[in-house]
Amino acid sequence: MKISELSAQTGISVPMIKYYLREGLLPEGERTAPTRATYGEIHVRRLRVIRALVAAGVSIAETRRVLDTLANPPANGYELLGSAHAAVTPPVDERLDLTAAQELVTGLGWAPDTCDEAVLFGVAQALQGLQHAGFDVAGEVMQVYLRSMREIADAEIAGIPTESAEAAVRYVVLGSVLVEPLLLALRRVAQQVASTERFGGDGALAGRPESLAEKHR
Amino acid sequence: MKISELSAQTGISVPMIKYYLREGLLPEGERTAPTRATYGEIHVRRLRVIRALVAAGVSIAETRRVLDTLANPPANGYELLGSAHAAVTPPVDERLDLTAAQELVTGLGWAPDTCDEAVLFGVAQALQGLQHAGFDVAGEVMQVYLRSMREIADAEIAGIPTESAEAAVRYVVLGSVLVEPLLLALRRVAQQVASTERFGGDGALAGRPESLAEKHR
Repeated sequence: MKISELSAQTGISVPMIKYYLREGLLPEGERTAPTRATYGEIHVRRLRVIRALVAAGVSIAETRRVLDTLANPPANGYELLGSAHAAVTPPVDERLDLTAAQELVTGLGWAPDTCDEAVLFGVAQALQGLQHAGFDVAGEVMQVYLRSMREIADAEIAGIPTESAEAAVRYVVLGSVLVEPLLLALRRVAQQVASTERFGGDGALAGRPESLAEKHR
Repeated sequence: MKISELSAQTGISVPMIKYYLREGLLPEGERTAPTRATYGEIHVRRLRVIRALVAAGVSIAETRRVLDTLANPPANGYELLGSAHAAVTPPVDERLDLTAAQELVTGLGWAPDTCDEAVLFGVAQALQGLQHAGFDVAGEVMQVYLRSMREIADAEIAGIPTESAEAAVRYVVLGSVLVEPLLLALRRVAQQVASTERFGGDGALAGRPESLAEKHR
């Protein structure tokens, strides 16, 4: 198909498609004349993945790494997950202290060889952010975080499709990244629902904390 | 204290502090001479919050809205949560179809008046991103997402501090935003741990899907 048809089919503008071609996110089409190329199903699929990643807040550089992992997956499931995570993980800050993160994830049954240092740095960085803002996560709440994330991960890993290697790779790489906005959006909905159920739609929380203390009993 | 001391105490460079002052994220210091100002504890605290938000990937515009909410909180707990969410929620795309999102969050016990349309749009947008990429979340996995996020929200709402209105506002506004990177980082750790436990450190997942199918039985 022509680039205009590719644009019509994916809803992505021609200039944007040309940008992705220049950036190497999209393979060149097949040349049919010096200034003409034809595109196929692979371009449609690839563009849909690019659009989803970009919409999920993944940068162009990270999108390129995710696409590279999809195109050249490591043969080993654990490394595949590591590559997917590495593609969207900011560079490690070597000055970060890993101790708190290590202690925390020990609660997940973590052992030094069951998780990459890169994802551990992610936890350390998040903990540091909270600490810098003077924000304390209570022990009970942290336990719920750990338990919930483990339940989610177990369900996700159990759901890896087995019909083909390609499906498995796609599931792991895209699932790691694209599900993130969904989880965060669901948490916000759940927070509002939980808040309404607990305090009512017009529960005075900031204005009259004493009424809040009452309801806590 | 002088701006150089403010910088030393927060680890944020003087040019960066001046940038935050220009952007109105930080209140002006007290003028002691035409070209001199003095800063206090409020600036230290504010800068720590700014740094944590920016490190969590919150934009300058969103950071400003979060700080505004902290400074002028709505008197009502439900609206407070709404403001915190609105501060970091991208503008609503009116073309989005809310039906799928509404059906999904009904599973959380959602009713039209227990959650803002803005957060519902967030769910719709995330679902659309997955759909565009051709990524299907299995029904059982989605149930785990909903249940886990509800457990997290219940624990968080139950943990709202009651000692002062200021503490409650701070907890709700910062907790909504700053905990997000922690949850995502914990999920990545949990995925790697779950994967290793299920398939072993060198489980061939992408290369030999048949061995994966075997382990599934």
